[in-house]
Amino acid sequence: MTVRRRSIVLLSGGMDSAVTAAVAMKESSPAFLHVSYGQRTGSKELACFRALARHYGIEETLECDISSLVAIGGSSLIDRSMPVRTDGIEEGTVPDSYVPFRNAHLVAIAASWAERTGAGAIYTGAVEEDSSGYPDCRESFFRAMEKAIRTGTVRGADMEIRTPLIHMSKTEIVRLGIDLKVPFRLTWSCYQDDEIACGICDSCRLRLIAFRNNNLRDPIPYDPNSGERGGRP
Amino acid sequence: MTVRRRSIVLLSGGMDSAVTAAVAMKESSPAFLHVSYGQRTGSKELACFRALARHYGIEETLECDISSLVAIGGSSLIDRSMPVRTDGIEEGTVPDSYVPFRNAHLVAIAASWAERTGAGAIYTGAVEEDSSGYPDCRESFFRAMEKAIRTGTVRGADMEIRTPLIHMSKTEIVRLGIDLKVPFRLTWSCYQDDEIACGICDSCRLRLIAFRNNNLRDPIPYDPNSGERGGRP
Repeated sequence: MTVRRRSIVLLSGGMDSAVTAAVAMKESSPAFLHVSYGQRTGSKELACFRALARHYGIEETLECDISSLVAIGGSSLIDRSMPVRTDGIEEGTVPDSYVPFRNAHLVAIAASWAERTGAGAIYTGAVEEDSSGYPDCRESFFRAMEKAIRTGTVRGADMEIRTPLIHMSKTEIVRLGIDLKVPFRLTWSCYQDDEIACGICDSCRLRLIAFRNNNLRDPIPYDPNSGERGGRP
Repeated sequence: MTVRRRSIVLLSGGMDSAVTAAVAMKESSPAFLHVSYGQRTGSKELACFRALARHYGIEETLECDISSLVAIGGSSLIDRSMPVRTDGIEEGTVPDSYVPFRNAHLVAIAASWAERTGAGAIYTGAVEEDSSGYPDCRESFFRAMEKAIRTGTVRGADMEIRTPLIHMSKTEIVRLGIDLKVPFRLTWSCYQDDEIACGICDSCRLRLIAFRNNNLRDPIPYDPNSGERGGRP
């Protein structure tokens, strides 16, 4: 019997990170890490994180809060005075839901925890192409952070940042999640509401198209005004 | 008249970062950033940060607290149950004052702030050779983080992480500080005490040797039991 490598999964509670967690379960022995950065839908995401940790039987979990930090950036995801856009993403622009350099903070926390616990891999569900166009979701960014960990820690010389979804489309992610039996009912993607998904923010739109392309109904509840039915609350 | 590039100086309030701030004042138009991570001598460092900002007439300052994060690492600098070592640094080892991947958190905060304010350079007073041997003080680490910022932000494509002291000895740093008229009386380096520097922790020892090599008396007060006199409190 081989001993599985310890890993850390950055798990927001959204669809992508839940699928990533399922991949990490296959490949390693993961601990789950949740980072709050003042998201509007933060309490819902945290509830999903906990439910997913229970679902996968993960004992080692860590919940961090960096809302005081990332607030220096200014983003519609954390600043309640800015509206969440529902008119789609313009090609070649960065949406105002962008939290400056967010994934660097997340990876740095994971790396500090990995340094203490001896984990050899960090999993993130970042998606480069078929996402909102955030610069800190690029593969080149994660490779640079990996190098920073390898040079900047004592035990991280072989650290890998695993980005299994980075070049997938949202449709492929849902398909992979179905294959891996991801409990999508325990995930949340809406930027706007934490009870009934709005169905019209960028994140809802990308998610709904992905389920539709797989001829599936998303099991979470949607605002009927959006034209989506979704599953039961 | 040329408009000076905006920059961000990571300023702990210690000797190295104060000299770095003086370099940044010559080269750019800086804002000062202080990050608390639960240091034993944190309130003294913060007081030095504020005094240095006043000294240099810096209006744009930011004070952040990430003690809840870095505490996941375990270090004698933040864990009061661990003794601060006073028996010198063993060659080839990393001392237990090491806070795992600390500089990654600091640089990430600076980069988020730079992204919002349009600063083009981040200054850090990290020292690679003549310091405590922390892996996140290596130049290769900062070059990797620079690449992470260039790939992971919208406005940071030309971002520079300036490390003017990285290959200097502590003796050279004090000499440079004297040349640049750094107010060393407003700086603090002791790991152990925030009223009278102990004179025997790693940080005090390195600092005192540097002043001695420059035939100067360090203007801050030292515990007379350490054999050092220092300046007046």
